[in-house]
Amino acid sequence: MVSEYRLKRRVLFYETDMAGIVHFSWFYRYMEEAEHALWREAGLSISPVGAEIGFPRVAASFDFHRPLRFEDEFEVRLTVVEIAAKTIRYSAHVTRGETSIATGTLTVACVRKIAGEPMRSMEIPADIATRVEVTPA
Amino acid sequence: MVSEYRLKRRVLFYETDMAGIVHFSWFYRYMEEAEHALWREAGLSISPVGAEIGFPRVAASFDFHRPLRFEDEFEVRLTVVEIAAKTIRYSAHVTRGETSIATGTLTVACVRKIAGEPMRSMEIPADIATRVEVTPA
Amino acid sequence: MVSEYRLKRRVLFYETDMAGIVHFSWFYRYMEEAEHALWREAGLSISPVGAEIGFPRVAASFDFHRPLRFEDEFEVRLTVVEIAAKTIRYSAHVTRGETSIATGTLTVACVRKIAGEPMRSMEIPADIATRVEVTPA
Amino acid sequence: MVSEYRLKRRVLFYETDMAGIVHFSWFYRYMEEAEHALWREAGLSISPVGAEIGFPRVAASFDFHRPLRFEDEFEVRLTVVEIAAKTIRYSAHVTRGETSIATGTLTVACVRKIAGEPMRSMEIPADIATRVEVTPA
Repeated sequence: MVSEYRLKRRVLFYETDMAGIVHFSWFYRYMEEAEHALWREAGLSISPVGAEIGFPRVAASFDFHRPLRFEDEFEVRLTVVEIAAKTIRYSAHVTRGETSIATGTLTVACVRKIAGEPMRSMEIPADIATRVEVTPA
Repeated sequence: MVSEYRLKRRVLFYETDMAGIVHFSWFYRYMEEAEHALWREAGLSISPVGAEIGFPRVAASFDFHRPLRFEDEFEVRLTVVEIAAKTIRYSAHVTRGETSIATGTLTVACVRKIAGEPMRSMEIPADIATRVEVTPA
Repeated sequence: MVSEYRLKRRVLFYETDMAGIVHFSWFYRYMEEAEHALWREAGLSISPVGAEIGFPRVAASFDFHRPLRFEDEFEVRLTVVEIAAKTIRYSAHVTRGETSIATGTLTVACVRKIAGEPMRSMEIPADIATRVEVTPA
Repeated sequence: MVSEYRLKRRVLFYETDMAGIVHFSWFYRYMEEAEHALWREAGLSISPVGAEIGFPRVAASFDFHRPLRFEDEFEVRLTVVEIAAKTIRYSAHVTRGETSIATGTLTVACVRKIAGEPMRSMEIPADIATRVEVTPA
């Protein structure tokens, strides 16, 4: 059972913008990277080849405290906040050493994908729900 | 005085992911595109060459209702929600025809940038504050 | 019959990097944007919903002469250089007013996509080959 | 003296497109990631804070042999092909296990950056030229 993941990363050149800092849109990608690494840690893939279910994002937010710059080493600590019947909620804390960089939230929903039809929400399959758990308080 | 902007856009191929829909990180970029277009409409640039002030993002969020797909034509309606002494708040509504796709919020802060020093928040200069106004309710 | 497309574009903030110029990886995306616009001009989509054929990129190159900066208005002139049985070759010229910014080439191949199988090259279907033609010299 | 770097990487979700494979524009970024890692291995940064010199890209190309997919583990082997007075040329080979995925080339130039002036090419400083060398044949 996995409930948290700490992703260690370095800022890449193409993630910076003309203000000399990481463009804010990248933080949402960093948070998702940590989510997918958490799933791998649980022995799962968020998007296996040929999968008929998927986990589209329902909501995502970030508050930004300090900028990240080129080659900065940082950590994304992702924790599972809630597992409901059809959704999972995470929170994320991005830090560079002792410095708090940003805090975020992410909610994803489980959906069935059938070619040519709209996605329909569905219950999270048991083999996933038994491998990921809410981070103990 | 400008208080709102309607950005019309088409989904580009590289904005889609393996789920066949626009990756959620792009919505934050779409919202920023609309912001910069609003500034141009007001006769301003958010980042003129050699500028000593900047507008880093303080917070940004999106709720996602429906996916966008390749070549979809959509609109981002950006409205100015609040202009405080040192920050501006926007809200965004992304639609495809009559369909609501996503709703977002964005808060930016005015900062002074001096090479080699941390960014420091400052009051929004008068020549900007007189060209952008809160959208009437 | 379409043989050329002129894409007009403005540099977006998130396309710049910490050097204050457009990151070079974006030029390959600009070239592809022009390609897809050329296809639309021909009444086609490069990737219709449910398509069983696709056009993966086989080769792409750029020589860079001058940088592009935030809010620069530029043009990508894409021309069809060769249509062979299974491949199409384009060349691209990126300009800002009278200034030459970059020149590129792109080769794409027609492939059949069957779920769970590797992509296999195939002849370009007649309804495509009759709508796109080589740019007259 | 460093002359080659092997970057190990996993494909991230946001690097895929609706065709289910890595979008070709990412290979140019992978190649650059390997270049910057090579510089760090040599005890250098390609873009130190406050630097007055830079290394804009002059040319870059890729030939694509096989696609990469989500979570594929791959390697970019970057080798230094030529160090001239003002330019450096690299070649790159992207592989997934024993499978050749793509081969690329990259040429960068050394320039002096003065705020408000165009970039001017200059000789590569000695402290860089003494740490990076051409890969022996």
